[in-house]
Amino acid sequence: MAKFQVNILGCGSATPTLRHQPSCQVIDFRDRLMMIDCGEGAQLQMRRMRLKFSRLNHIFISHLHGDHFLGLPGLLSTMALHDTGGSVTVHVLKEGADILRRIMDVFCRDTSFEIIYDIIRPERRVLLDEASFTVETFPLYHRVPAVGFIFREKPKLRHINGEMVRFYEVPVSKIQEIRSGHDFITADGRVIPNERLTTPAEPAVSYAYCSDTAFDKRVAEDVRGVDTIYHEATYLEDCAAKASSRGHSTAFQAGEIATLAGARRLILGHYSKRYEDLAPFVEEAARSFAGDIIAADEGMKIDLL
Amino acid sequence: MAKFQVNILGCGSATPTLRHQPSCQVIDFRDRLMMIDCGEGAQLQMRRMRLKFSRLNHIFISHLHGDHFLGLPGLLSTMALHDTGGSVTVHVLKEGADILRRIMDVFCRDTSFEIIYDIIRPERRVLLDEASFTVETFPLYHRVPAVGFIFREKPKLRHINGEMVRFYEVPVSKIQEIRSGHDFITADGRVIPNERLTTPAEPAVSYAYCSDTAFDKRVAEDVRGVDTIYHEATYLEDCAAKASSRGHSTAFQAGEIATLAGARRLILGHYSKRYEDLAPFVEEAARSFAGDIIAADEGMKIDLL
Repeated sequence: MAKFQVNILGCGSATPTLRHQPSCQVIDFRDRLMMIDCGEGAQLQMRRMRLKFSRLNHIFISHLHGDHFLGLPGLLSTMALHDTGGSVTVHVLKEGADILRRIMDVFCRDTSFEIIYDIIRPERRVLLDEASFTVETFPLYHRVPAVGFIFREKPKLRHINGEMVRFYEVPVSKIQEIRSGHDFITADGRVIPNERLTTPAEPAVSYAYCSDTAFDKRVAEDVRGVDTIYHEATYLEDCAAKASSRGHSTAFQAGEIATLAGARRLILGHYSKRYEDLAPFVEEAARSFAGDIIAADEGMKIDLL
Repeated sequence: MAKFQVNILGCGSATPTLRHQPSCQVIDFRDRLMMIDCGEGAQLQMRRMRLKFSRLNHIFISHLHGDHFLGLPGLLSTMALHDTGGSVTVHVLKEGADILRRIMDVFCRDTSFEIIYDIIRPERRVLLDEASFTVETFPLYHRVPAVGFIFREKPKLRHINGEMVRFYEVPVSKIQEIRSGHDFITADGRVIPNERLTTPAEPAVSYAYCSDTAFDKRVAEDVRGVDTIYHEATYLEDCAAKASSRGHSTAFQAGEIATLAGARRLILGHYSKRYEDLAPFVEEAARSFAGDIIAADEGMKIDLL
């Protein structure tokens, strides 16, 4: 049940090719699915990866370029067609909500499926605050307004030391409190420190999505302390000038951001179609980042825990 | 060089599945490409079938359902990105042109690629009249306004009988006229009948696209005399009631239309996702049509000559 995975549905850029699909990821958080970006073909990738439409309740769109958006009308139409009275929330910039509403008015009439539009902006803000996780936005630095997302587990409960709990005769009603970190007070007023009754919880894990963006140290500041960072690496350093002029990053720069942010792991993606081989991306990022590096590829399920 | 082919890019219905792509065909007429309908993923199917974007100058959209339209924004964005100063004409119902313009305004700024919008209606009309072929529209009978298309080769030139042409000393300047069917008049005023100088041309071939539509005899009237008919067969006869209520046809009904129209060949497609196997479609249509029957499948190139 403790699951926090990122599914790579697409990690190419600009246009779909036979090598890579355009941007799309699905976070699987304890069987709740949340999509980030939705390039053309995303719905078919959902089927290929056996991700259930019915479990998808949130879609986050980073910016309004076709390779991050144009799979959305088709995906939502299909969800509406399969509708069992559900709804989905699309978190998107205002202009994206406006055009999506118009498209759905033309292509998705006569359905009870509800699309909720949540207007986001390139700013630091907590978008979603659920029982076990939060989703936050932060600004990216692309040719058009762009938004990054952080998915953060809330602190987890500590593990009960069964032997000690029995020894101190802790009633069941107190267990949740103790798992949250409180000390236990016995019937005769003795304080039993929490550390004697529990062992530490697994660390709360977090994931940041940084695409599309130019290299910018403000991104590292905004994602500081995040466990795993997905950072676009549209180019290698041989195209650093092109990366900069187009508001994109190189693999080396993605590594720099991960280092500055103190991340444990870096996932690379959004590759330009000029590159066939992914190994050079990892090699280049390894020159600026000492942690784990994964070159995203379609079909990958990356465990974040 | 004499080429008149239909490429099947997608022949499923409603939503893309791992078995079938949504509707899309490309007519290859002597290396000029014309697309009919453009479901999501059409641009990727173009790449798979090695059809060149640069050769595509006309796109015809039959009606405004997502499975016939939603690949268009992505395809046009990609064509704009590859732009070498070209243009494409999209023949589409007015509401489709309106929404497409809006979408392209958001997702395809800053390009010199020109999209020409040609507003069509469900009516009999010659849309395109080119040197060697015409494209005509006619009404279909679906839940929403829908348009069928007929692609017609113009009559071809007769073949010169070289021996006779030399015998009668026909000057080169007269050859084109004679290939068109005229008699030849010798210097001394004798009339040489055309049949003595030429052999017949290959017959002019035609292709009609009838999707989506309910079974309606008016369709057969409008495509009477067409050589090859593509007619939707969303269902088999076991779902005839559903076909009728949703403005679709069965394979048996598609065969009836082909028979009424006097066609030589019938291509079936737009299969509901409830069917895996295509053989029953051909078997059923063969009960109402005695000509050639082809069950369309993705990747097929069907020679119309």
